[in-house]
Amino acid sequence: MSPSGTVRAEPDRITSDLAALAGVTEDAAPGWTRRLFSEPYRSARPQVRSIMAAAGLETHIDPAGNVIGRLPGRDPSLAPLMTGSHTDTVYGGGKFDGLVGVLGGVEVARLLTENGIRLQRDLLVVDFLGEEANPFGVSCLGSRAISGKLTAEQLDRTDGTGGERLGEAMASFGVDPASALDCAWAPGSVHAYVELHVEQGPLLERSGNRIGVVTAIAGIERLLARFAGRSDHAGTMPMNDRRDALVAASEAVLTIEREGCGAPIHGVSTTGRIESSPGAFNLVPDQATIWAEVRSIDERWLSGSRRRIADRIAEQAQARGVQTALEWLNDQPPVRTTPDVQDVISSSARDLGYSWEAVPSGAGHDAAHMVHLGPMGMIFIPSAGGRSHVPEEFTSESDIAAGVEVLAQSLISLDRSA
Amino acid sequence: MSPSGTVRAEPDRITSDLAALAGVTEDAAPGWTRRLFSEPYRSARPQVRSIMAAAGLETHIDPAGNVIGRLPGRDPSLAPLMTGSHTDTVYGGGKFDGLVGVLGGVEVARLLTENGIRLQRDLLVVDFLGEEANPFGVSCLGSRAISGKLTAEQLDRTDGTGGERLGEAMASFGVDPASALDCAWAPGSVHAYVELHVEQGPLLERSGNRIGVVTAIAGIERLLARFAGRSDHAGTMPMNDRRDALVAASEAVLTIEREGCGAPIHGVSTTGRIESSPGAFNLVPDQATIWAEVRSIDERWLSGSRRRIADRIAEQAQARGVQTALEWLNDQPPVRTTPDVQDVISSSARDLGYSWEAVPSGAGHDAAHMVHLGPMGMIFIPSAGGRSHVPEEFTSESDIAAGVEVLAQSLISLDRSA
Repeated sequence: MSPSGTVRAEPDRITSDLAALAGVTEDAAPGWTRRLFSEPYRSARPQVRSIMAAAGLETHIDPAGNVIGRLPGRDPSLAPLMTGSHTDTVYGGGKFDGLVGVLGGVEVARLLTENGIRLQRDLLVVDFLGEEANPFGVSCLGSRAISGKLTAEQLDRTDGTGGERLGEAMASFGVDPASALDCAWAPGSVHAYVELHVEQGPLLERSGNRIGVVTAIAGIERLLARFAGRSDHAGTMPMNDRRDALVAASEAVLTIEREGCGAPIHGVSTTGRIESSPGAFNLVPDQATIWAEVRSIDERWLSGSRRRIADRIAEQAQARGVQTALEWLNDQPPVRTTPDVQDVISSSARDLGYSWEAVPSGAGHDAAHMVHLGPMGMIFIPSAGGRSHVPEEFTSESDIAAGVEVLAQSLISLDRSA
Repeated sequence: MSPSGTVRAEPDRITSDLAALAGVTEDAAPGWTRRLFSEPYRSARPQVRSIMAAAGLETHIDPAGNVIGRLPGRDPSLAPLMTGSHTDTVYGGGKFDGLVGVLGGVEVARLLTENGIRLQRDLLVVDFLGEEANPFGVSCLGSRAISGKLTAEQLDRTDGTGGERLGEAMASFGVDPASALDCAWAPGSVHAYVELHVEQGPLLERSGNRIGVVTAIAGIERLLARFAGRSDHAGTMPMNDRRDALVAASEAVLTIEREGCGAPIHGVSTTGRIESSPGAFNLVPDQATIWAEVRSIDERWLSGSRRRIADRIAEQAQARGVQTALEWLNDQPPVRTTPDVQDVISSSARDLGYSWEAVPSGAGHDAAHMVHLGPMGMIFIPSAGGRSHVPEEFTSESDIAAGVEVLAQSLISLDRSA
C-alpha cells in the first residue's frame, strides 16, 4: 500500500494480459475481432480463467455463460462486490473495449492480495457473455440473464438470415438456454457493481481529465425502416412520376441526422447501414432499407425523438408515393448510475490525485443490467481521439493503471459501506 | 396489301414469336431475365436465326456477334436498309424491350414477301449483341462494333469484381474480340436504319397516341461517387465531430434528384445504387458509394448538370470532413435522329391512320450508334404505365402490330428515297 493508504497498479502486468487476450482474433477479420460464438471467443475463455486463477481467484462458468472469478472475503454470508466487463468485440474492433474492465478487475484482485488487504465481502470479477451487439439483436447476454431480463422470445430470435436461433447458438457454444433463462439473481444480491471501461468518446481526452465518473448510460432506440416504391427505367420515367425508394431513404438518413444534431448534449442519432435494390445504374430503386439508432441519457427526449423521426419519415416518403414500414427494436431505456457509487468513485479519484469529471456513457454496458441487482457505477478512462469499435482504438498504459487504481480504491471503500 | 396501299401486320405471329423467345430465361432471376453472356442468351440466338430463316431471311452471325437476317433486294449493289434491336435483357426485365424490334423486323420481312413487295435494296434485320447495360459498363456491344466505336480499352474492362475482362467474356461466348475491334462498316454504308421499340416511358399512353416518332436519344452521364469518412462508435462520437460517409452520400442522392427535377423537359437524374460500410447499427459509416446517372437530349444542360452535381457533392461532403472521389463513366452524348427519317415515319403513321407525336428517347438504343453509318430513325409504341426494365413491362398486341406496320411502310418509303 502506498503512503497515502491507496494501492498503486502495475501497468506492465495489465499490458501483458491485454496483449495476450487481444491477440486471440478472427483471422479473416480486420483489427482485433473476437465476436460472440466465434472460435477465438471460445478459445479466449479458458485463457481468461487461467489469468484469473493465476491471480488467486476461484473460477467457474455460471449458467448464463459468464466466466466468474471469486476472491473470497472474510464473511461469505455478505452480498458480494462485483466488477467486470466483457471479452467479445465488434467486427473490426479494438484491443481495449471490454478487456480493460475484465483484466482491470483481475489486477485489482492481485493488488488487494499483494497489499495484504482482505475485503470483508467476496469480490467477483466477471467476464460477461456476449456484451456487444450481435446479429440476433440481443446484446449483454450474460448480464441480462443474471439480472432476469433475458427472455424466451429473445432466445428464439434468428440472426436475420433465417439461420440458427440465439438459443441454439448458445447451446452449441455450451450454454444451456433453459438454464440461462432461469438463473436470475435476486435484486439486492449484489452489494455494489463497479465497471471500468474505456470512454469510447472524446470528452476526457479533450478536458484532460484522467477519470470519468459515469452519470448515466444512454438509452437506445433502434430503427429498421423499409421503403417500398416502384422500379422504373431511369431514362424514361419522368422525375415527377417516380416512386423512388432510395431518395426517400436518403431523406430519412438526413432526418435522422438532424434529430441528433438538435439533441440535448450527448444525444446522438446514426444511420449505420443502408441497402437498396435492384441496384442497377439505370433503374429507379424500388426497395431501400436503413438501420438506424438514437441514443440519449434523457428518456423524455428519446421517446420524443422516436415519434418525431417516425412522423417525419412517413410524411416525406408519403409525399413521394413511397410506402414505409418502421420497426423499432431492442429498446434500452436510459439508466442512471447510483449517486452513492458516483460519490465513492469521485472521492477515490481525488484521493489518488487523478482529475475527474462527470460524464455520460453513450455506449451500452453490462452495468446497465447490473443496476437491477444492486448499486452500480462506472469508471471511464480516456480513448485516444474518442475512437472506439475500430482497430485504432487506444488507451494509454498509464490511463489504464489510473483506472485500475480508482476501481480498487472504490471497491475498498464500498466494502466498508453499509 | 390493303386497299390503301399499306401492309397490315399479323399480330398472332409476333405474339407467338415473342412468347417463345421471352420464355428463354435465367431460372434463378425474376421476370424475363436473359442477360448478356448468360446461358439463356446463348441458347436464344439459334432460335432467333430459326425464326428469321422461317421468314425467308438468309442468316449469319457477323464478326461483332450480331445475328443478321438478310432479305435480298433487287439490286444487291445498293446500300442496304436496316432494322433491328436486341434480345438481351436487364436483370428482372420484361418481355418486350428489344424483342419487339427484332421480331417486328422479321414480321416486316414476312409481310413484304406475303404482299409480293420486293424492295430494291437488301433489308437487314439485326439482333445486336448485348445492348443493355452490363457489369463491364459497355452497352450496345454489337452496334458499337460495326459503327467503329468499340475500343480495346473497353474490351479490357472487368466486371468490377476483378474477374474476367469483357474481351475474355466475348471470346468465351464465341465472339473473337480482335475481329470485333476490326469490323467497322464504312460511314454511309447503310441507306437508312429504323428501329421499332417500346417507349419505356408514359408519354404515349398519356396522350393516347399510338406511334412515337423519336426526335433524339438522350445522352447519358454516369457517375460513380465514393465517399470516405471515418468510422466511430455511434453512441459515443458527438454529432459535430463525425465524418459520416453515409450522410454525405445521402445528401448527394438528394442533390442528384434535385438536378433532374430542375431539368428541361425529359431530363432525368437517378441514383440507382448505394452501398455503405462497415454496416453495423452502432458504427458511423466510413465508406459509401453511389452509382448515379443524368440523362437529357440537351447536350448543354447535360454538361452543365455534370459540373453542378460534381461541385455541389464536393462542397457538401467537404463541409462534413468527408472526402470524395467522383468518376464519370461511359459518356454517351445526345443523338438526334435524322429529320428525313422522322418525316418518313410520321407520314407512314398518318397514311396508316395511326395518331402520332414527336417524343424523345430517355433510354439508350442501338440506333444511337447506327447513326454513324447512315440516316437513322426510331418508332416508339406505348408502354403500359410507362413501365420498363421490370417484369410488368407490357405493350398490347395491337400496338405492336401498329408499330410493325409503320416500320414496314417506312422501310418501303425509304427504299424508294434517294
